[in-house]
Amino acid sequence: MTESAEPIRVGVLGARGRMGLEVCKAVDGAPDLELVAMIDQGDVLFSAEEGHAQVLVDFTSPDVVMDNLRWAIEHGINVVVGTTGFTEQRLDQVRGWLAAKPGVGVLIAPNFGIAAVLMMQFAAKAARYFESAEIIEQHHPRKFDAPSGTATRTAQVIAAARAEAGLGPMPDATKEEVEGARGANIDGVRVHAVRSAGLLAHQEVLFGTDGEILTIRHDSLDRVSFMPGVLLSVRNVGRLPGLTIGIDSLLD
Amino acid sequence: MTESAEPIRVGVLGARGRMGLEVCKAVDGAPDLELVAMIDQGDVLFSAEEGHAQVLVDFTSPDVVMDNLRWAIEHGINVVVGTTGFTEQRLDQVRGWLAAKPGVGVLIAPNFGIAAVLMMQFAAKAARYFESAEIIEQHHPRKFDAPSGTATRTAQVIAAARAEAGLGPMPDATKEEVEGARGANIDGVRVHAVRSAGLLAHQEVLFGTDGEILTIRHDSLDRVSFMPGVLLSVRNVGRLPGLTIGIDSLLD
Amino acid sequence: MTESAEPIRVGVLGARGRMGLEVCKAVDGAPDLELVAMIDQGDVLFSAEEGHAQVLVDFTSPDVVMDNLRWAIEHGINVVVGTTGFTEQRLDQVRGWLAAKPGVGVLIAPNFGIAAVLMMQFAAKAARYFESAEIIEQHHPRKFDAPSGTATRTAQVIAAARAEAGLGPMPDATKEEVEGARGANIDGVRVHAVRSAGLLAHQEVLFGTDGEILTIRHDSLDRVSFMPGVLLSVRNVGRLPGLTIGIDSLLD
Amino acid sequence: MTESAEPIRVGVLGARGRMGLEVCKAVDGAPDLELVAMIDQGDVLFSAEEGHAQVLVDFTSPDVVMDNLRWAIEHGINVVVGTTGFTEQRLDQVRGWLAAKPGVGVLIAPNFGIAAVLMMQFAAKAARYFESAEIIEQHHPRKFDAPSGTATRTAQVIAAARAEAGLGPMPDATKEEVEGARGANIDGVRVHAVRSAGLLAHQEVLFGTDGEILTIRHDSLDRVSFMPGVLLSVRNVGRLPGLTIGIDSLLD
Repeated sequence: MTESAEPIRVGVLGARGRMGLEVCKAVDGAPDLELVAMIDQGDVLFSAEEGHAQVLVDFTSPDVVMDNLRWAIEHGINVVVGTTGFTEQRLDQVRGWLAAKPGVGVLIAPNFGIAAVLMMQFAAKAARYFESAEIIEQHHPRKFDAPSGTATRTAQVIAAARAEAGLGPMPDATKEEVEGARGANIDGVRVHAVRSAGLLAHQEVLFGTDGEILTIRHDSLDRVSFMPGVLLSVRNVGRLPGLTIGIDSLLD
Repeated sequence: MTESAEPIRVGVLGARGRMGLEVCKAVDGAPDLELVAMIDQGDVLFSAEEGHAQVLVDFTSPDVVMDNLRWAIEHGINVVVGTTGFTEQRLDQVRGWLAAKPGVGVLIAPNFGIAAVLMMQFAAKAARYFESAEIIEQHHPRKFDAPSGTATRTAQVIAAARAEAGLGPMPDATKEEVEGARGANIDGVRVHAVRSAGLLAHQEVLFGTDGEILTIRHDSLDRVSFMPGVLLSVRNVGRLPGLTIGIDSLLD
Repeated sequence: MTESAEPIRVGVLGARGRMGLEVCKAVDGAPDLELVAMIDQGDVLFSAEEGHAQVLVDFTSPDVVMDNLRWAIEHGINVVVGTTGFTEQRLDQVRGWLAAKPGVGVLIAPNFGIAAVLMMQFAAKAARYFESAEIIEQHHPRKFDAPSGTATRTAQVIAAARAEAGLGPMPDATKEEVEGARGANIDGVRVHAVRSAGLLAHQEVLFGTDGEILTIRHDSLDRVSFMPGVLLSVRNVGRLPGLTIGIDSLLD
Repeated sequence: MTESAEPIRVGVLGARGRMGLEVCKAVDGAPDLELVAMIDQGDVLFSAEEGHAQVLVDFTSPDVVMDNLRWAIEHGINVVVGTTGFTEQRLDQVRGWLAAKPGVGVLIAPNFGIAAVLMMQFAAKAARYFESAEIIEQHHPRKFDAPSGTATRTAQVIAAARAEAGLGPMPDATKEEVEGARGANIDGVRVHAVRSAGLLAHQEVLFGTDGEILTIRHDSLDRVSFMPGVLLSVRNVGRLPGLTIGIDSLLD
């Protein structure tokens, strides 16, 4: 959290939505940021210009986000985007607009959770040093898919790191298995999905070698946990001209 | 651990085996017990009689344990048995011998781990009060079966307690499942088996209802952990005439 | 959850409060219960009588709860009370009113969390069988007291069970301690209080003996978790004439 | 684990000690390494030369390790050292010998546990992104010091990372504390030391921000867990001329 002489001026698009509202509160509570515009359906973007916003945060919807981006880029305003629905085609469109405005930065992230990104980075690094790796994800019972998208991606990252390090298959002497006991096999990494009332969103990645275990666990309890990642993006998007996908590169 | 005026005199059969040796050490270290005989292959049981053993502990093998039991019962000595291989037929034979010696107690246990028994008892009690229950067992990768026998029994105990309490199926909205992600289905209870280098023998039982989770976890690291259960049996077998199976009834 | 031919008729006092509202929802959602009255400040209790309520649930405030109780007992209606502020004097007053109406039951509980009560019961039982016991409680950083009241009570329960079982002090070779590292000493049981952003209310009780560890953990995430305990009380208070304190006795 | 055409020839000094024996087994079991000399008290180092050892592993004692190092460096053999007792003076001496033999590499590590090093690296990285950080270490009750050296170092690393990131004190509203409940204060980071029978060596580092928790846990069960770190050092010491302290730099 580097201190700057003057606070960064921030406008929020989708300010009345669940996430937008949290962003407004978070920006308002940060001493190095100033909330200069709260914009939602029906409001005109002019207020962002009038407030001399340096960064816009967009948590709107797929049908308006592209218009917002074009307008912001044209006006030389950096944008942090949490809105979903970005296809490769849409990303190319954004890249095209940015090419004409080389100083402007746009950061689009599917997920602003810093802990989730760190868990993935740590898993990628640890994977090459341990004989075994296994994932247990735990979610509320209203979830449709098992395992979670995050668990699947983590397994893929681990599998890739193991392959790169020249590690072979993990030790596993299982001969008699009640169907499903050993979990789903994602690229050779076993993934277990627990579903229980009382759970929210949790993931445990276990690495083992003879004599020791290293465990990385993430418990996500509330979407307010995305705010540090949003603020980190707001603070850094001005130094990242062009299009940035995800917050990974902000974490070293 | 009630103090008695005089220590209980204990003999150990199979004293040179892994478990027998641990039992000798444990008896020797307990102030309320006296180790009066250490017997193994080739030794005569007479030494147990000579030492006025009040309790024999048998960790021998299926082919000699029945002879030991007959001899001990005939001589009015109580026996705690950790040797395996007891069929219903063998148990009936022991019951027959005990019928002729009404004061003698024999306790045969497949497992002397107090924590494992407590985990099972706690799981049985908690199961009736929670919407969801799920088991994660974790073992070294040299294990042949998945899930473990203990995990399977725990699932059965939970399923029975839920049925008795009139609970229906657990909530689970899973629609898209990578095969195996949701674990093995044991009587309606999901069981996940993790296998990793570095693990020993662990089990976690998770109970959940909206807004809270109760977890019971057992980590078993060394067979020395069976000793408190063996000593508890030695101290109590004299008050339990006839045949007792398992140490459950000693734990209240 | 035994099925009865006719649902139990329930009225809720303090129905517009946070807890009262949750109770209304929970009663409404239970097929064996019928919500016949929702009463709050300004409403007259008459509606409870008119609805032929068999049980009243009181989540009001210390200044009105005594009037509610006197009225309910006089009218022969059972009461489940979650309101706080009951001194010994107040409890005696309630006992007095109940003496005149021998068929009526009142259950007053400081906490309706079933998991918390089970954790305490399990801890009391396990304590006598393990050399070591230690408590780690984890809460959000806005909490004033450390350790929590629940952790302190758990330590006292463990200490009492150990004393009864004749266990001496726990093994601990610590010679060089940075002040506070070994936690608070509550009746000889070490208690550690973790405070961190992102935590809600959690407690872990660890029991250890050579070679094994038994852990009981409770995660409390939302006050909705009290509802199963409230409903359990509503279903059983009719069979418990007189005054009952806490829900412990309902859990076997 | 990069495959090389020819295996690296390895000699082990202190081959009959606990650690030395494990190293011999590990080298013997690695297809890319060849065990060419096992040396212990009374043996002459000549056998290392005769076996054309390219790397020596030294797990001897402080009184002989310096002689071994001088001999190996003079003979142009790389050395991996797990022996303790290295003062700054001794390290300077080693640096002096190495200055005269610029191609030779010596790696001295107080701890070859890869998981412990990764935990420290991950903690250093995560520390800057979370409001709160707290450490719980858990050890067997025969340990003299509390908290452990590793926990103290982890706390210092976290404190330094927080300071660098401009983070202020952690949130903590504690007003009423039973002495010791909040743990030891190491540079502003709270550290809790649990001691219990049944534990071996464990450490949990918890990072929290509103709405989420990231936990890194290390369970160390057996000194065999040091072998991957020793082998990693053996494989890389040849590419690291001069003196290297610790295995950190080998892990990226």
